[in-house]
Amino acid sequence: MNARRLPHPSPAARAAATPDGGTLDPDRLFPVETRTRAIARDLFSRVADLPIISPHGHVDPRLLVDDAPFPDPARLLVTHDHYVTRLLHAGGVEMSSLRLGPALAEPREVWRALANNWHLFAGTASGYWLAHELATLFGVTGELSAESADTSFDRITAQLGEPRLRPRALFAAFGIDVLATTDDPLDDLTHHQALAQDPSFTGRVIPTFRPDAYITPATPGFRERVERLMDLEGAAPDDFDAYLRALEARRAHFIAHGAVSADHGVLEPRAEDLRPDEASTLFRAAMTGKLSPEGERSFAAHMLLQMARMSVDDGLVMTIHPGVHRNHSSETLRRWGPDTGHDIPVATSYTQNLRPLLEKYGLAPEFHLILFGIDESAMSREIAPLAGFYPSVYIGAPWWFLDAPDAILRFRASVTETAGFYRGSGFVDDTRAFLSIPARHDGARRLDSAFLARLVCEGRISLPAAERIAVDLVDAIPRKAFKL
Amino acid sequence: MNARRLPHPSPAARAAATPDGGTLDPDRLFPVETRTRAIARDLFSRVADLPIISPHGHVDPRLLVDDAPFPDPARLLVTHDHYVTRLLHAGGVEMSSLRLGPALAEPREVWRALANNWHLFAGTASGYWLAHELATLFGVTGELSAESADTSFDRITAQLGEPRLRPRALFAAFGIDVLATTDDPLDDLTHHQALAQDPSFTGRVIPTFRPDAYITPATPGFRERVERLMDLEGAAPDDFDAYLRALEARRAHFIAHGAVSADHGVLEPRAEDLRPDEASTLFRAAMTGKLSPEGERSFAAHMLLQMARMSVDDGLVMTIHPGVHRNHSSETLRRWGPDTGHDIPVATSYTQNLRPLLEKYGLAPEFHLILFGIDESAMSREIAPLAGFYPSVYIGAPWWFLDAPDAILRFRASVTETAGFYRGSGFVDDTRAFLSIPARHDGARRLDSAFLARLVCEGRISLPAAERIAVDLVDAIPRKAFKL
Amino acid sequence: MNARRLPHPSPAARAAATPDGGTLDPDRLFPVETRTRAIARDLFSRVADLPIISPHGHVDPRLLVDDAPFPDPARLLVTHDHYVTRLLHAGGVEMSSLRLGPALAEPREVWRALANNWHLFAGTASGYWLAHELATLFGVTGELSAESADTSFDRITAQLGEPRLRPRALFAAFGIDVLATTDDPLDDLTHHQALAQDPSFTGRVIPTFRPDAYITPATPGFRERVERLMDLEGAAPDDFDAYLRALEARRAHFIAHGAVSADHGVLEPRAEDLRPDEASTLFRAAMTGKLSPEGERSFAAHMLLQMARMSVDDGLVMTIHPGVHRNHSSETLRRWGPDTGHDIPVATSYTQNLRPLLEKYGLAPEFHLILFGIDESAMSREIAPLAGFYPSVYIGAPWWFLDAPDAILRFRASVTETAGFYRGSGFVDDTRAFLSIPARHDGARRLDSAFLARLVCEGRISLPAAERIAVDLVDAIPRKAFKL
Repeated sequence: MNARRLPHPSPAARAAATPDGGTLDPDRLFPVETRTRAIARDLFSRVADLPIISPHGHVDPRLLVDDAPFPDPARLLVTHDHYVTRLLHAGGVEMSSLRLGPALAEPREVWRALANNWHLFAGTASGYWLAHELATLFGVTGELSAESADTSFDRITAQLGEPRLRPRALFAAFGIDVLATTDDPLDDLTHHQALAQDPSFTGRVIPTFRPDAYITPATPGFRERVERLMDLEGAAPDDFDAYLRALEARRAHFIAHGAVSADHGVLEPRAEDLRPDEASTLFRAAMTGKLSPEGERSFAAHMLLQMARMSVDDGLVMTIHPGVHRNHSSETLRRWGPDTGHDIPVATSYTQNLRPLLEKYGLAPEFHLILFGIDESAMSREIAPLAGFYPSVYIGAPWWFLDAPDAILRFRASVTETAGFYRGSGFVDDTRAFLSIPARHDGARRLDSAFLARLVCEGRISLPAAERIAVDLVDAIPRKAFKL
Repeated sequence: MNARRLPHPSPAARAAATPDGGTLDPDRLFPVETRTRAIARDLFSRVADLPIISPHGHVDPRLLVDDAPFPDPARLLVTHDHYVTRLLHAGGVEMSSLRLGPALAEPREVWRALANNWHLFAGTASGYWLAHELATLFGVTGELSAESADTSFDRITAQLGEPRLRPRALFAAFGIDVLATTDDPLDDLTHHQALAQDPSFTGRVIPTFRPDAYITPATPGFRERVERLMDLEGAAPDDFDAYLRALEARRAHFIAHGAVSADHGVLEPRAEDLRPDEASTLFRAAMTGKLSPEGERSFAAHMLLQMARMSVDDGLVMTIHPGVHRNHSSETLRRWGPDTGHDIPVATSYTQNLRPLLEKYGLAPEFHLILFGIDESAMSREIAPLAGFYPSVYIGAPWWFLDAPDAILRFRASVTETAGFYRGSGFVDDTRAFLSIPARHDGARRLDSAFLARLVCEGRISLPAAERIAVDLVDAIPRKAFKL
Repeated sequence: MNARRLPHPSPAARAAATPDGGTLDPDRLFPVETRTRAIARDLFSRVADLPIISPHGHVDPRLLVDDAPFPDPARLLVTHDHYVTRLLHAGGVEMSSLRLGPALAEPREVWRALANNWHLFAGTASGYWLAHELATLFGVTGELSAESADTSFDRITAQLGEPRLRPRALFAAFGIDVLATTDDPLDDLTHHQALAQDPSFTGRVIPTFRPDAYITPATPGFRERVERLMDLEGAAPDDFDAYLRALEARRAHFIAHGAVSADHGVLEPRAEDLRPDEASTLFRAAMTGKLSPEGERSFAAHMLLQMARMSVDDGLVMTIHPGVHRNHSSETLRRWGPDTGHDIPVATSYTQNLRPLLEKYGLAPEFHLILFGIDESAMSREIAPLAGFYPSVYIGAPWWFLDAPDAILRFRASVTETAGFYRGSGFVDDTRAFLSIPARHDGARRLDSAFLARLVCEGRISLPAAERIAVDLVDAIPRKAFKL
């Protein structure tokens, strides 16, 4: 399994994006011990420049359609990144000081809030990525501070007009081979179409079908959304079979635009196998607002099973991102909207919750079910054992709060001894911060190299095996898991 | 944020307490790898002699009021320390052999039980602390054993009369800046007052309001305690509003005596927002012994919310130590009382349990809620994400069974990548073993130095940042979290 | 506590079993850092050749009674080892290609399936053990591959007839002192008797009483099994007291044949203390097929308590292996039977579930209760604290998916700081793969040496203490826990 060496950015293109990255430690994230570090360095050198496969994330495709210069450092690196704003908020910065607009803040003020509170980010993954982005893209090195806030703001601002910092130039410079976005089922996907048909853009940007709000009756606006769905597909709004067909039609629309996966962000990864008449009754109750909380839970669990069934039928890889209580702070949701830093994980169980789904489809040929997790206790206990038996189950990369150096090493140590390297999804950045993509993949590659180097030094795998695995982890493995 | 360098013990005072500590490894708890160890040693040297802030613990203030010599090695180091007696008990020593008194044991016999079973403590935190205390305070080095039990007993006994080993001399020699005790709400706090008014004692010893037994109807003696509370504050025993006012009055009494925090040791960290009439009805039922187990659970959960409300009003930092099943062995409780080593942790969830409290007060200015935990799986999953968003939430230091070298490093690795260093409480020793305070803080400082040194060597933080953080962790950070 | 140096295999016997093991790293599993590695190597050298105590496992005693040559490499190393087949299945190999027989596969085909998919095992415990077995027993070194599959198959096959590879010769060469099997309560234990009475076999092979299927009404076939039990012991099939006496009689039968422990593989480690009439009513309902799922759960929980009572009475060590959802895939169970790789763990709680049992028997003299676990989050939270107080409770070795290098080190780091080394069971291989026994014990000894070496280098235990503990871990500690 050698990496398909895709056309990827020339050293010149990369250099263009790296005016002065000299202060990043070239051995960062490697183990400290000399011999292990040397092996990690060698392994990393084999994958550092391989193309980036990003099969799940939240970048807006319009960014690449418009290809406009980024407007200012605040919008570019702070305002839209809830990883960053949540920690500033925790540190005492009002959300109003992090948002731009009349009666809100100016970009420079937002930037100052970041710089003044830079100490909050020491040791965090977000701080690590920001430092990487500032150094490699803007030559801003060292720590931000109140004293230097204006200088760094001005220095970044001055560069934002440069062609090398336009989204498409960065896409090329980053060496992105595939970038998947996450999209509403009713999205017409014109942006994806525009990119696909644009001869001046050679990147591959594909949509991902994310139907949560259309299959979870407890979500505010569920009925209206389903009505629009039924309307679009010309179906009666209370017909469960038509509802299923409408969802299938939207999946087909996504597949026609290049989608390879459907993503499911459920609170609990629970599936329930209802009889058609039971499901139909719950659906009608949901559409008339008469469904009990228990019925809502059952219907959502049944729809997870239906989504698996559709994946078996149409081939979309099914990914589940469970276990997050979204919008924990109602006041913050009301004032500032969703995705503003207060989604908080909960304990998550897969073994018994997913059993009805795996009983029906776990052995189905070509079915791929990637289980992400944010509850570390389930990694060695449930996710690795499931992926170590069911050919359909793949282990999702460490996600969200776990996409961080120590957590990634804990993840590898937790799942590998049971399920090896080849039952995983490969790294997934899951980011809406476009500029953080290289920092995240660079980090993951370094950490996988570090992990493999340790196994070599402990006599657990051979160096040639480690070299093959390092490459497969960024190429063959994600391509297989995501059917790319 | 430089450490306020408080007047602290002179080298002479420290030396007085360390007649012969030579056999403790000066590099203990540091990473083994040479370069990391050198950095850890440097970081530690900056904090080793800074004053000790102990914002939560269980030392009896009478110890310092009386300032009497410790009577014997058994009472000093074994009998009252349930960390020590539990492991001896597990190893087969009868509890009766560890208690002093007629028909029980002599101090020398207790000491022999410890020495004979010293192997049980190898690799434990308790063993580590004991070794530290024996070496630094009494010059007793090496391992205890059956053969040398009497020698070490006599050697310690001979020193107990020395002035340097009186509680106040040790308080000074340990470099304690603040010591918080934990007290019953009806405590008149005369001991604290005596210490505050004694011109010959310059230490700061402050009480902590711990109302568990007065707000948890399932606790034996709840009604009698609440009646005493109501009586003390002159209120009718079945009036819920008067009950709340009485609790507020006791908190005010504590604040007047220097308290900065209120502590809550609940089985589950669950809050419930009841209407006043609902709460009042439950209260009356509790006071007439007619409350169902479900009602008891609701009332306790509502009182946790009320405690948060009072903290918002009066400024006491709210600390929660949840997730321990107290007094697991009824027979042991009956024969030997509480706090005898059989409190056993359970799985703990915060995200959904605490939501009602955080919905009401999570964004309140100046509210501080420190979440301790003893279920490691909740650290990266819930505690760090909560503290990474809510300005009110602070991450409690690793507690009880987790106050141990590897557990402390796991804790740092689990929470830092999400919430950084500045959303924590700083180290808390939580001890009733006065002599173990320096060992515990010394250990925590070494381990934080070790953790920071690793991040430096992995290129994740700069050395100057690590130096600042090391100092802040023992000074600015606990002072801020506990409003000291 | 020095190891009783039992007569164990001469270097010649060992060499006979190791024609060419030269490519295994002699420092495998040791820490990488030089000084720690040197200490680990020294510690390991003290235990590497000590006899193997295997107090819990699943080797079939007929293997040693028959002492026949192993038939082929597939049966020897693949077909019967669900650790191996599960990962091949996950990697896409049909179960039918891993089973021998008409319309199924030939041994050579099974071997090819393993060799073709060798990359799946990189970094896994199973791969590590296989490599150890291939190198030490057959001189097959390096990685298996499609190209070399036939060569290795032939090379192994050619050796299988050699006397050194007969089961009894291997038993001696492995240096096994005690081997416990796991047996059905109705087993007449004639194989154990045959071995005990055979003057030409000097090994100690003892049965283990495993009554799950006779005390868990939800198990298919429960009634028929209990009827056979009652029949065998001449009791009326609906008499609960007679049922208890029948179980006691079978335990006595096992004890008479050398058994030292009774093993319990429950989904949840839950005990319930029912009144005799309640238990009796549930039993009669179970025997007439009228027990509700709730009743089944209560009865099973009560029987766990009864088993503890019997252990207190007859002295059999009680071991609990909880928290595994057996036979997760019904289709796989139907087609290929149990123990085929789809037993998947679930979250497990001990503190409250086991309390009724510990309330009754936790302080009983000579009662030994070994708690295994497969949910890592419960290790520091519940298992270590329980074993750190109750003299009856011992910490089971890392089990099943956790019998792997990193998991073993996590286990040690999780439980030692609370409960030390002497509250554990010693290593347990729990294997049905006879040939993997040395690899597993060798690995466990290396990892314990590695862990101890780290504590020495961190100044937490002395080198002499580490040396004693290393030996005790493979000798005094398992002998004490399992009453050997």
